[in-house]
This record gives sequence, C-alpha cells and structure tokens, in this order.
Amino acid sequence: MKKDIYLDNSATTKPYDKVIESISYINKNVYGNPSSLHAKGLEAEKYIKEARSSISKSLAVDSKEIYFTSGGTEANNLAITGFLEANPRNGKKIITTKIEHPSVLEVYKHLIKKGYIVDFIDVDDKGIINLESLKKAINDDTALISIIYINNEIGTIQPITDIVKIKNSINREAVIHMDAVQAYGKIKIAPRKLGVDLMSISSHKIHGPKGVGALYIRKDLKVNSVLIGGGQEFNMRSGTENVSGISGFGLAADMTCNKLEENCLRCVKIKEYFKNRLKEEFHEDALIVSPKDSSPYILNVSFSNIRSEVLLHYLEIERIFVSTGSACSSKKNTHSHVLQALGMMPERIDGAIRFSFSVFNSIEEIDVVINTLKEILPKINIKRGGKR
Amino acid sequence: MKKDIYLDNSATTKPYDKVIESISYINKNVYGNPSSLHAKGLEAEKYIKEARSSISKSLAVDSKEIYFTSGGTEANNLAITGFLEANPRNGKKIITTKIEHPSVLEVYKHLIKKGYIVDFIDVDDKGIINLESLKKAINDDTALISIIYINNEIGTIQPITDIVKIKNSINREAVIHMDAVQAYGKIKIAPRKLGVDLMSISSHKIHGPKGVGALYIRKDLKVNSVLIGGGQEFNMRSGTENVSGISGFGLAADMTCNKLEENCLRCVKIKEYFKNRLKEEFHEDALIVSPKDSSPYILNVSFSNIRSEVLLHYLEIERIFVSTGSACSSKKNTHSHVLQALGMMPERIDGAIRFSFSVFNSIEEIDVVINTLKEILPKINIKRGGKR
Repeated sequence: MKKDIYLDNSATTKPYDKVIESISYINKNVYGNPSSLHAKGLEAEKYIKEARSSISKSLAVDSKEIYFTSGGTEANNLAITGFLEANPRNGKKIITTKIEHPSVLEVYKHLIKKGYIVDFIDVDDKGIINLESLKKAINDDTALISIIYINNEIGTIQPITDIVKIKNSINREAVIHMDAVQAYGKIKIAPRKLGVDLMSISSHKIHGPKGVGALYIRKDLKVNSVLIGGGQEFNMRSGTENVSGISGFGLAADMTCNKLEENCLRCVKIKEYFKNRLKEEFHEDALIVSPKDSSPYILNVSFSNIRSEVLLHYLEIERIFVSTGSACSSKKNTHSHVLQALGMMPERIDGAIRFSFSVFNSIEEIDVVINTLKEILPKINIKRGGKR
Repeated sequence: MKKDIYLDNSATTKPYDKVIESISYINKNVYGNPSSLHAKGLEAEKYIKEARSSISKSLAVDSKEIYFTSGGTEANNLAITGFLEANPRNGKKIITTKIEHPSVLEVYKHLIKKGYIVDFIDVDDKGIINLESLKKAINDDTALISIIYINNEIGTIQPITDIVKIKNSINREAVIHMDAVQAYGKIKIAPRKLGVDLMSISSHKIHGPKGVGALYIRKDLKVNSVLIGGGQEFNMRSGTENVSGISGFGLAADMTCNKLEENCLRCVKIKEYFKNRLKEEFHEDALIVSPKDSSPYILNVSFSNIRSEVLLHYLEIERIFVSTGSACSSKKNTHSHVLQALGMMPERIDGAIRFSFSVFNSIEEIDVVINTLKEILPKINIKRGGKR
C-alpha cells in the first residue's frame, strides 16, 4: 500500500507522538478533577497551569489572559457573544470581512436577527480587506471588529497592524477580535503588540488534540461567560477541564512555537517548490489562487476544466489527501464564500483545491503529487469528456 | 508508598485502560477531520457514528437523538438555553429544584435576569423533591422543568416517573430536562420510557475521557444551537469533533453499561459495608447523610465536631481521596447549597464528606479507610482541641 501523503493540514493535523504519549500518561495517572481539593486535584490543576503558561508565553501575554475552550469555534463564539453581552452600551455596530470562518460568520448572521448591524467588508482578488471600506464603516457606534488573521481557504494574511491603526484613528474603544486559528504556531503573533483585544486559537491545527482551543482576552476587557456552571477557567468557561487535552495543547504549542521559524521555512520551500512545479507542468491550467505573501502553510490552486471534488477522490485513491475548501463547508455542496468574495468565476471555484502543509510534509511528497496530477488531470478534464 | 484509595468518583473517574489505549490509537491513526471529504475524514466520522450508536443503544433511543458536547456542563447549558431560545412562546416559567448542579442552577439564575420566572422547588431532608410544591408550581406558562436525576452530593434519586406524571396531568407541553450526569452508567435509564425530553450525560463520570458529554434531545423537539459555526452534530453543536474523546466516551459507555448491574451490585455492597462499619465504629458521630435507596455510588457522611476540609487533607496524607461536596463548589468556601436545602445545621454541613465509589474500589479499601478514620478523627475533633 502506498504511503499516505496528507496535505489537508488546515483541516486538522496529525498530533505529535509526544503529545499522544503525554495524553495517555495523563489519562492514566493524572485523572483527578482539577476542582478537587486533594492532591489528585492539585496535580491535575498543575498540568493546566503549565499549559496556560506555555500558551501565554508563546503569545507574549499574561497567563491570566488565556482561557481554555473546547476549540476554535467555541473561542470565536465566546469572543463575540461574550464580549457583546458584557458590553451592551458599546454600540450596536459590528464590522467583519466576507471571508471569515463559519464560526464567526454564522454567529454574526445570528446577531443580525438580534438587532446588531453587521458590515461585511469586501476583500480584493487577493483576499485582502479593503481598508477604505473599513475606514468608512467604523464609527462611534462600532463595538467590535472581527478579522481572520490567516484565511483558512487561501492563506491570505490580513494587514492587522494597518487595520488596528485605522480603527484607533476613528474609534479607540472599538474592540478587535482576531480569529488566529490558522495563524497560531505558523507565524509569530503577539496580540498585545498588534493591538488585538480578543484572539482565538486551536490545538488540533498545530499537532495537538482535537476538542481544545483557547481565547486570549486582553486584561481588563469585560467578557461574559457563555458556558455557565461550576466557574472553571476563572469563571469564564464552566465545565470540568479536559486536562489531558489542555495539557496536550500546551505541549503541542511548546513544540510548534519553539521551532516556528524552522517549520515555517520548511513549508515556504515546499509551497514554492509546489507552485513552480505546477506552473512548469500545467501552466495556466493550474491557477494559483493563494496570493503572494500568503501563509506558507496553504496553497489554493484552481485547475482548469475539472471538478475539485472529482480530483479529490481520484487523489485519495492514490492516498493523497487534500481539500476542496474548508473542511467545515465541504459537505454543504455550496460554492466557497471565500472564493466568491475574491470575485472568482464559478468554473474557477469549481476547480479549486486546497493543499495545506505541515512539518511532516516533504519535497519528495510534492513530486509524487505532481506526477499523480499529471496522470489524473487529463482523465477528469471536463472538456475531454472527464467525469463531472 | 501507600496505594491510592480513590473515593472521589463522583468528581471524576479513572479512565479504563482500554479507553486510554483507544484514544491513543485514534490520535495516532484516525487523525482526519470528520468534515473532510476524503477517506481520512470518513474514517474519523465512522468512529463518531459508532460512539453515537453505543450511547443511543444504552439509552434505548434513536442515534439521531444523541448530540455530542464538550461535557455535562455544555449539555445542561445547551438543553436549557437552546430549548428556551427555540421555543420563546412556550411560556416564561421554569421549574427546577434547590439541589441542582451549578451548570443548571447558575444558568437559571442568569435567565431570571432575562425575564424568566424560575421556581426552585424545595426538597425534604432526604433530598426528595416536594411533589405537592411541584404540582402547585406547574401551570400553563411552564415551559421547562429541570430535575437532577441523581444528586451529585448525596446521591438522592428523584422519583422521575411521578414527576412526569404530575407534569402531564397539568401541562403536557411542558418539557422535562433531566441532568443524568451522576446517573448514566450507574442505573438503567430509558429517557423515552421515562417521558424525559432532554437529558444530559458526561463521559468522565463513567471512566471515559474528560471534555466529552452528550445531550439526548427527543425527536421533533426544537432546540437552538448554542455553539454556531461549521454545523457539526447535525447543526446542533459546531466545532471540529473531538474524535478520540467521543470515541473513548462510546467505548466507556459500552464497557460500563454492559456491566451495569454487576457494577451496581459491587458498589451496593461497598456502600452497605461502609455504612455498617461507620455505625459500628463511630455510632452517632458519623451521621449518614445519603438517604436509603440513594445511589450505590455515593455515600455522604457528616462527622461530628470536625471540619470536613481538615479531614480531607488528613486523609489525603494517607493517600485516601475524598471530597467535601461537589468538586465544582469545593473551592468556593461556601456552604453546600444541597446540604442547606436538606435543612442540615451548619455544624453538620461543616463535617460532611462525600465518599463516591466505582468498580475499581473494594471492601478491603473500606477497611483501610475505617482504620484511618479511627486514627484521624480523634486528632481533629474540634471539641478535643483539634484543628479547625
């Protein structure tokens, strides 16, 4: 059987072996409830404290500014709903972009029904937010601005410093929420320095376990709890803590962030090599959708005259795993809202494949993928009578 | 070093070895995102499907009626908030008991601020809900009734069949939510047969991993999603699924529910033996708080003239782990709301210790505990000048 080539790392990553071992160790030995007063509780609490310290160090923030959640989606929900509920007088206006993750976009669509006014700012053909539109949209009634730092489908990195500068020049009180799920552990992020007030991150995108995430909340910012109960996570997020998961996230954060530049360089090389090989082999039949200076971890390519879902299944037969867009919307059979926002033609959107990388990938794998594509693409070309 | 004697199983349980191994296997081999279209996604989805089937079978419900959450707290929050948001015209009145878990009680306290009228029904000195008060409280405007099936501090089992009968005789449309976190896997539960509409359960109370729970939602009952985003869990609970955790929960459910009666019998014996030994050795200085016919898994005892926290710490030196009440409220230094609701005197509440059992406990361990108590209790007796 062929070796797996996993190029769907933006959907989720393979946990590090050390993380898997650590989770096992904790499940076996540190099974106490962190809220218990006895030694087994304290021991479990210690592991959470260590993880909180790992995450906070990696972001250059205070450990009290990190709140663990069940994942990136919960972190995004908590940031938005929790902030708005806690600050009802900060205004009814919200600004976001057209290329957010569903866990931001859908929350805002829901809030519109509750009386909030939400501006979905346009992006250009590279996925960069229109700063002029942003400037016009911000006013005294703007409570919250949500921006996805690295877009999950095409890898566009938003000019967050410019965004914060513009915001501060108009309404210093407006709060910036950044969805950094695809950015954390991939590029260096210091939310405090960036001027970001709320920031969501996720464990399973950096080789940690699924079911864990965190929200950075700037000190002194009032945010209401969304999950109410026993008062865990400093009353911000009730429920018995997922000790082994949280600890695994902390370890994955240490392992990832300590090698951030090295990993990044590896993926830059892979992505550049891949792009060059695609151009070499397929010329204009492989349109690179991801813009220049986008995340080294994401390469979105639109192949001419194919249906991406068909290509995906042909590739998986060869044990090559890719994605047609975000994992979240993959089953909904709708056109990607991100690619639509770029102004791409429907037939181009139909042919788009997201290749996403991790440290576990290699140049050799890319060669295999290119060779496989050379075999498959002609077979499934619609114009040549390929499968629809 | 002495062998650990863990008697805090209502706070959390030690995961089964097989569950720990299975989690490792999945983290290593089945790391795909269940939403991914390729084989790795499908494989992950299969594990979730299997777990859903395990849970639903154990409850004799349809697999489509089970929704995975990040734990019991989230299940309780989702049940209450999700149901009320989805059914705003069902009435503004809610009924619950004075001895609910904080993840129910605190949600209701929050809802009072939002205009709901919440009746907190009294319980008798055994913790049984006052059915006359319940009858008087229910009216046409009653939307929801939340009842904790087995109380987490003293083990009282509520007469849920009588409660449902009374409800149906007055308002058939009112919905019953049951917090079964301490009951699931301990006693046989068939929510549909019981007439329960919403039911919360948790994995880490039955030797599964922390960070996973589930909500049973009766077919055709409208409940709004609380976590919004990618639409996982049939649009009820967004966020990438905690595959290994959910699968571990399913396995723990299989292992626990297949031996439910055997396990129960084991704990009945342990609890009865413990009660008898306590009476033998300490007479009225060990007041059994847990009523007759309460959960075999929980024994709450109030020791005369001691402070339970002091006893807890003396016991942990001997590697015996117990609790002063629920883990959730243990650090809050307030008197247990459950023991207060029973009408216990403050000095009796001060001396209360919860011993909670699992299949991993034995009669031999109880002998060790009794002998240890015989040594410690005189030392810490307040009247004899013991530590406060």
